[in-house]
Amino acid sequence: MSIRIGIYGYGNLGRGVESAIRQNPDLSLAAVFTRRDPKDLKIQTEGVPVLSAGDVLSFKDEIDVMILCGGSATDLPEQTPSLAEHFCVIDSFDTHKRIPEHFERVDAAAKAGGKLGVISVGWDPGMFSLARLYSSAILPCGKDYTFWGKGVSQGHSDAIRRIEGVLDARQYTVPVEEAIAAVRSGACPELSTREKHTRECYVVAKEGADLARIEHEIKTMPNYFADYDTTVHFISSEELAREHSGIPHGGSVLRSGKTGFDLENAELIEFRLKLDSNPEFTASVIVAAARAAYRMAKRGEVGCRTLFDIPPAYLSPLSDDELRRSLL
Amino acid sequence: MSIRIGIYGYGNLGRGVESAIRQNPDLSLAAVFTRRDPKDLKIQTEGVPVLSAGDVLSFKDEIDVMILCGGSATDLPEQTPSLAEHFCVIDSFDTHKRIPEHFERVDAAAKAGGKLGVISVGWDPGMFSLARLYSSAILPCGKDYTFWGKGVSQGHSDAIRRIEGVLDARQYTVPVEEAIAAVRSGACPELSTREKHTRECYVVAKEGADLARIEHEIKTMPNYFADYDTTVHFISSEELAREHSGIPHGGSVLRSGKTGFDLENAELIEFRLKLDSNPEFTASVIVAAARAAYRMAKRGEVGCRTLFDIPPAYLSPLSDDELRRSLL
Repeated sequence: MSIRIGIYGYGNLGRGVESAIRQNPDLSLAAVFTRRDPKDLKIQTEGVPVLSAGDVLSFKDEIDVMILCGGSATDLPEQTPSLAEHFCVIDSFDTHKRIPEHFERVDAAAKAGGKLGVISVGWDPGMFSLARLYSSAILPCGKDYTFWGKGVSQGHSDAIRRIEGVLDARQYTVPVEEAIAAVRSGACPELSTREKHTRECYVVAKEGADLARIEHEIKTMPNYFADYDTTVHFISSEELAREHSGIPHGGSVLRSGKTGFDLENAELIEFRLKLDSNPEFTASVIVAAARAAYRMAKRGEVGCRTLFDIPPAYLSPLSDDELRRSLL
Repeated sequence: MSIRIGIYGYGNLGRGVESAIRQNPDLSLAAVFTRRDPKDLKIQTEGVPVLSAGDVLSFKDEIDVMILCGGSATDLPEQTPSLAEHFCVIDSFDTHKRIPEHFERVDAAAKAGGKLGVISVGWDPGMFSLARLYSSAILPCGKDYTFWGKGVSQGHSDAIRRIEGVLDARQYTVPVEEAIAAVRSGACPELSTREKHTRECYVVAKEGADLARIEHEIKTMPNYFADYDTTVHFISSEELAREHSGIPHGGSVLRSGKTGFDLENAELIEFRLKLDSNPEFTASVIVAAARAAYRMAKRGEVGCRTLFDIPPAYLSPLSDDELRRSLL
């Protein structure tokens, strides 16, 4: 009897979850819930119902784990607490500074309903967070570095699109290779924002738009671009579609630390991801966490959790014996 | 009130544990136990007693976690089960294929005494095992690669020392950079033993020894060298002491996997270590695990565990709130 998964919200992440479930024979897709008209939604898995988000509560007994695939800006802050009272839920809430507040709300709702919720699952927050936690626990005398990219930042791409005269845009976050190399060498450099990442923008402008003004607006935009060395390329919509339609991402979490009575030895830990598809990888982490959430819920655990709280073995379909024999 | 640690066995690893404890203000060294005459042992921490291994049971109430720092060949298979009945224990048992059997014996002893034991803590087994577990759970359609080095292999160095005419030796395991590069590129190559690692040997021979015979014996030694491209350098004992006295190690665990409905996207996970001191890093992992073991024991957990069973948050001195705020 497989673990029955519900998908709530069917964009890039929802599709990623649908495809990840196929790689895990102990999981099955039970239903997809959408705020659109279900008739208009075509999913890839035959025989699985597409249902209206409004009807979700009638499926409490048909779903073991509900995976919320909405966005962190407005969807998840409302949806996760509201569903956590009725379902075992997982989300990928990724607004780092609002995590404590989101945690509290999901925790309260899950406890009220006697359910388990897991938030902020993915790669950052998620696997990168785990790398930071493990490596800082192991090397207390040390310094963390997180580099992102090369990869597409949806938020920065959206910010460019809001500029007058811009039809479409794609922004890549690019780590500065010299900075990574310095950290990998065992040095503990102090790096400014500008020294860690550059930003590359591919912009499709309206015909006749003032390109110099657009470029200036991008490069001086506070928070998003002003603190970075930014390059702007104006290209055609055809080129954007042809060369920039992927959603790659990745990066490295490094910890450079010292050991020994006189801190005479340098130790370096690096966790690195190179992803063709950001949403599909995020979905793959979420689906493994869904297995863990199911097991924790079965044990009677209640309230909100993150990957920090999940014993690693719970994520794997292998038994404890098999894990010790084959992976330890 | 800090967590009181006992060190059982004071070689390179024991000294590493002693120095790691200094980096963790919530831990304190309570005592060092040795099979040598305690009078002959000088440790680095003032005011801490050095005691005879035979007296260890009288210190049941003075030690919260006993860290066993003996070797996997003969010490730990006997010591860990025997102490697990009386203490919360941790070891770094690293004979991979005997782990299931060691686990069973420690589990039985710990349960008999109502204690908790954690075995096989370090980097391989240990952090590399965690990397294999997390990455295989996330990317079921994929392939694992573990590369070791460049680093000193104690077992291979010892094997050379047993050859007639050899005074001393140091063996480095060296990963083949082209093989790592191929895996990092997203390919899933099938790699033979010979294609993954080479072996470099620095040998001090007795005066007048038959160097050609020694080199031949090394290169044809089954299990240790016959399956590898091996180079042998004869050097003086002065050069060995000057250039090869460190105990560096490290390596990479990679998982190359595919996602998407048609497995059209490649995802790569890499966990990499670059260590000046193999025993000090191993000790640093063990000391973090000692904190976790203490917490699990306090919760009433009993029996044998590995890092696979430990919620990551237990390893950190930070509270759950702080972890979510600062590292998630």
